[in-house]
Amino acid sequence: MARIAIDMDNVMADLQQHVLAVYAKDYGEVIDPRRLDSVPEGSVFPEGVMVKMLNTPGFFRSIPVMKGSQEVVKALAAEHEVFIVSAAMEFPFSLAEKLAWLNEHFPFIHWRNIVFCGSKTIVEADYMIDDHDKNLRSFKGTPLLFSAPHNLPLTDYKRLNNWEEVATFFELSEVAA
Amino acid sequence: MARIAIDMDNVMADLQQHVLAVYAKDYGEVIDPRRLDSVPEGSVFPEGVMVKMLNTPGFFRSIPVMKGSQEVVKALAAEHEVFIVSAAMEFPFSLAEKLAWLNEHFPFIHWRNIVFCGSKTIVEADYMIDDHDKNLRSFKGTPLLFSAPHNLPLTDYKRLNNWEEVATFFELSEVAA
Repeated sequence: MARIAIDMDNVMADLQQHVLAVYAKDYGEVIDPRRLDSVPEGSVFPEGVMVKMLNTPGFFRSIPVMKGSQEVVKALAAEHEVFIVSAAMEFPFSLAEKLAWLNEHFPFIHWRNIVFCGSKTIVEADYMIDDHDKNLRSFKGTPLLFSAPHNLPLTDYKRLNNWEEVATFFELSEVAA
Repeated sequence: MARIAIDMDNVMADLQQHVLAVYAKDYGEVIDPRRLDSVPEGSVFPEGVMVKMLNTPGFFRSIPVMKGSQEVVKALAAEHEVFIVSAAMEFPFSLAEKLAWLNEHFPFIHWRNIVFCGSKTIVEADYMIDDHDKNLRSFKGTPLLFSAPHNLPLTDYKRLNNWEEVATFFELSEVAA
């Protein structure tokens, strides 16, 4: 049994799809998702807009679930010690919303296994599934880069493109992700 | 420079004083603080009352600061890597309130250095200052038991009775706690 730290945004929660939908609704401009590829997160919007969206009450509560994540996280949690580790501290509204979101979409995750932090350098685990170089860089276990548009140029880590590949990596043969 | 994980309730925040004050106000009964000594936390109240108080909005936001904690935590943070690590996940209301409380009373603590978790088994640090055996037991660094009424019978750890003793332990000669 391994301890696996799993990130929320861009990993369990489809943040990219959500920011595009919120931007289209609030700012009236539809952005081609391919424009997010290989550029820093949020850089496709006018300056300050991404941070403004992230700081809006309700934003995190309504993020769609990443395809395949529920089934695979459930299967992982049955065989391993799974911790959900989210860098939530920068956006105070997100704390309660992220907890409510987890309780709704991942009810099998116990509150004991949830961590909201700022820096992830304090997290000790065997594996970390995350989309950000800054979180994986200092990790002492095995870092696993979950593909997101912004991290496509990164070549430093074992890359998992979707939850089906997570299931394969951890040899969860029973799961249809 | 060491990494020091510091608990909030009963360590930075005077939880015992607060529950007695809230109980006296809401239930009309003044309890002698000495009755808290050496008995499990909350056991001095009728069953369920402690949990009910902890789940009341505003409870955590208004806890008084533990005597000496601000000066010593500030001095520790100047010399070491200080992380505030609080088991906040059991009480959803506490998340935003604890963050606001920290921002008010410990404004020198950056959000990157705040961790709200359930189980603290995932925390990696050199020292952990905590009042609960359950948090210190699995800690791989040096556990430091901060005295609280409920832990007086515990003899398993290096005990620090107050923030002056924390300052002495970490050789912070400049601090008047």
